[in-house]
Amino acid sequence: MPVTTDAAIEITAFRWVPEFAQGLVRDLRLRWAMEEVGLDYRVRLLGPERPTDYLLEQPFDQVPCFSDGIVKIFESAAIVQYIGEKSDVLLPRDPQGRFRAIQWSYAAVNSVEPAFNNLFAVTVFYADQEWAKLRRQGAEDFARLKLKRVSEWLGDKTWLEGERFTIGDLLMVTVLRNLKHTGLVAEFPNVAAYQKRGEARPAFQRALADQLAVFAANQPQPEGAAA
Amino acid sequence: MPVTTDAAIEITAFRWVPEFAQGLVRDLRLRWAMEEVGLDYRVRLLGPERPTDYLLEQPFDQVPCFSDGIVKIFESAAIVQYIGEKSDVLLPRDPQGRFRAIQWSYAAVNSVEPAFNNLFAVTVFYADQEWAKLRRQGAEDFARLKLKRVSEWLGDKTWLEGERFTIGDLLMVTVLRNLKHTGLVAEFPNVAAYQKRGEARPAFQRALADQLAVFAANQPQPEGAAA
Repeated sequence: MPVTTDAAIEITAFRWVPEFAQGLVRDLRLRWAMEEVGLDYRVRLLGPERPTDYLLEQPFDQVPCFSDGIVKIFESAAIVQYIGEKSDVLLPRDPQGRFRAIQWSYAAVNSVEPAFNNLFAVTVFYADQEWAKLRRQGAEDFARLKLKRVSEWLGDKTWLEGERFTIGDLLMVTVLRNLKHTGLVAEFPNVAAYQKRGEARPAFQRALADQLAVFAANQPQPEGAAA
Repeated sequence: MPVTTDAAIEITAFRWVPEFAQGLVRDLRLRWAMEEVGLDYRVRLLGPERPTDYLLEQPFDQVPCFSDGIVKIFESAAIVQYIGEKSDVLLPRDPQGRFRAIQWSYAAVNSVEPAFNNLFAVTVFYADQEWAKLRRQGAEDFARLKLKRVSEWLGDKTWLEGERFTIGDLLMVTVLRNLKHTGLVAEFPNVAAYQKRGEARPAFQRALADQLAVFAANQPQPEGAAA
């Protein structure tokens, strides 16, 4: 159980987020990576109000940040790569294997995730706005095209580069989870099975349970409930 | 002059793109990185029709791909990191310096670029569509917020992490260029000066000239001009 109070590694996470974002916040990626490689960590929880100097740690006002006494960095995919480099569990050592994994890390967050986030925006965040209603079909088609590309590449492989699960898969699976409010992934059975394989990993299950446990413990009380 | 016909490194690039995309296509990032570190490369040009098996090289049907006899990879930011790792010119060797640079590489393409691409989409690609007109102000505000975050972080630093130019700066400057159709960067003088410093580097100038020279040489002739 890697969450400990005296670990050298500290990450930041939110104390609570609305239900639609639970299981999607990006500290999940770090928790998962650390569970895969067996690193202990502790969590510094942030409320909706951040510490006044938080932008000096995370210029985009997001979570997670990471520090371990050696580095102090932000940006979840970079942190996952840093954790990956600590062993060959998530990142092969040979140049080609290593950079195929790193390439998929960047692809997950740059070639795929923005299309999914845009669909999330028009179907969840801005659902009531006129522009979002008009854009919804286009955003869905674009997200579907990205899924088609991933599906065609994946074929009948177990993971993106074959038999080895890497940081690229870890990031891609968390990116695919951003479509949970849609039925899109199910249109591509091999991608759906791939996501399911990732989510079935014990390390993922522990990471998810640990993120959700924080939200459950900090559930805001309905007004007046304490009275 | 790193573009040679017999170099071990091969990258893919487009033979020609419309004027609005010239100087923005992502092979520019690789050309720039290779100019900075002094690596020779050759260019395999692709037309609008790709080779039938191109998706096996680049699953998202984009440029650039990269091969050097050691690795064969796609995704421009991953390739820039790979080039960066070949020396300490663009990527410090110490863990903190190294991962601060890698963190900014991911931040450029994940925390910043999508907001700029969305603004580009509503003001250029989809400018005539009703949803884009309705969304334009919101997209501009979101892009401006990202610029504000970068500006506040940057302060009076020369580069994102101080005195050393790294792969993170290289990628951030190319991302800022995606706003050239707007006046947004000028609203943040320190960011505008930062972009200008990056673009003034001789390596950038050579890379840009080499990309533009290809488009000039392959400018489509107006119909009937050959008659």
